[in-house]
Amino acid sequence: MTQTSAAQVREQIRRGEITGNTSGLAPGFVQCNLVVLPADYANDFLRFCQRNPKPCPLIAMADKPGDFAVTDAGEGIDIRTDFPAYEVFEHGRHQQQITDLTALWRQDWVSFLLGCSFSFEEALLDNQLEVRNITEGVNVPMYKTNLPCQSAGPFHGNMVVSMRPMKAADAIRAIQICSRFPQVHGAPVHLGDPTLIGINDLQQPDYGDAVTIGDDELPVFWACGVTPQLAIQNAKPPVCITHSPGCMLITDLRNSQLSML
Amino acid sequence: MTQTSAAQVREQIRRGEITGNTSGLAPGFVQCNLVVLPADYANDFLRFCQRNPKPCPLIAMADKPGDFAVTDAGEGIDIRTDFPAYEVFEHGRHQQQITDLTALWRQDWVSFLLGCSFSFEEALLDNQLEVRNITEGVNVPMYKTNLPCQSAGPFHGNMVVSMRPMKAADAIRAIQICSRFPQVHGAPVHLGDPTLIGINDLQQPDYGDAVTIGDDELPVFWACGVTPQLAIQNAKPPVCITHSPGCMLITDLRNSQLSML
Repeated sequence: MTQTSAAQVREQIRRGEITGNTSGLAPGFVQCNLVVLPADYANDFLRFCQRNPKPCPLIAMADKPGDFAVTDAGEGIDIRTDFPAYEVFEHGRHQQQITDLTALWRQDWVSFLLGCSFSFEEALLDNQLEVRNITEGVNVPMYKTNLPCQSAGPFHGNMVVSMRPMKAADAIRAIQICSRFPQVHGAPVHLGDPTLIGINDLQQPDYGDAVTIGDDELPVFWACGVTPQLAIQNAKPPVCITHSPGCMLITDLRNSQLSML
Repeated sequence: MTQTSAAQVREQIRRGEITGNTSGLAPGFVQCNLVVLPADYANDFLRFCQRNPKPCPLIAMADKPGDFAVTDAGEGIDIRTDFPAYEVFEHGRHQQQITDLTALWRQDWVSFLLGCSFSFEEALLDNQLEVRNITEGVNVPMYKTNLPCQSAGPFHGNMVVSMRPMKAADAIRAIQICSRFPQVHGAPVHLGDPTLIGINDLQQPDYGDAVTIGDDELPVFWACGVTPQLAIQNAKPPVCITHSPGCMLITDLRNSQLSML
């Protein structure tokens, strides 16, 4: 797939021809999470990302408030239209899902694009490792933990993790592979006994769907992009926009570019 | 410590002033295991190392049969005298421990130097990770597994592993660190449930000493240099010399040189 086709998929999303999950679209290209915050909150959120790079890996951001272009991530990107769906929060509470931000857009909004697990899942699959949530065709299971993030201004909270079960040798290989990709959550943060990070029942995820775990497998936990959403709920900014779960921006960046080795 | 001092320690060993464990001597320098085999067996053993690089990481070998210099590992190295102690095997059976090979040396003997865990343990300590066997002042616990090696001619057998318990986050960091050092066993081969690799009781190691394992720790298993000794017992060459456990050759190579990153 060529770079043109990443832009083509983005164009289809912009025209409303693709409205759902972007998983598997434009393979090889980096997909990003979105956080839009009023300028008053932007510096604190930027510091929160800088202090918590594993759950909040910042790929790119708008040059200045009001910009809906993020040229670092791709020519012609329009933050207002290029995600299939958005979630609107006010004072930390969910208000509505919408498919276009154009009517709401304000001149003091700052856009942040964060790396997502699709990139490292692709790297795992390219290395012949199984990704259970993909095999089973469900959303990855995600859990609140007792691992605290570093606070920054009003942004604070515990880390949310995603979990993929693996045999030990595959888990070791996955750690090696994901260590090459610090901008998309990097190496796992925990593996083995879930109670050590405050998870009591793997079959009852806080977000997403439960997956099968074999007797000969370990649960492997990665820092998850839901973490900043929890921190935003805690910060209660007057308004905040995020992408809808699974409905990402397809950038012109390639996953292979993110590999530090 | 300068390169001169590695040679100085080697000289002390050669003169018989150091006769025991070399752990902690000449920090920063690579220490090596020894295997000496008759030329008839050398090609098969070389293939065995090539096929099983994690348990049998070949650092250097003699240029030709009869050579007791291995200049790739250091100027002036004399395989016959520069280990504190040697073990002599005949037809796979242990015969004696000696401190000097000069009287036994034969013109058809080929010398192999293999990487050892001292190098990666140093890297772990340099990264503020605890190495339990060092903390507790004992030999690392080692276990026979049910993980088969790739055979080469008469050399065959299962892998032997060493075990160091760690908290999950430290285990993940240890995997990253050790992945940089493929010539000294590289990344762990297993972690978690020991029964999955045929180990029934961690408190009953096959070699070395048991160590404390905390409730919040995972056992982490590395391929171990005892593996080739088992394969040699199986191959039953008419004669074979190895170093005595813990009594290594101190080379002029630096551990930092072995890092691939």
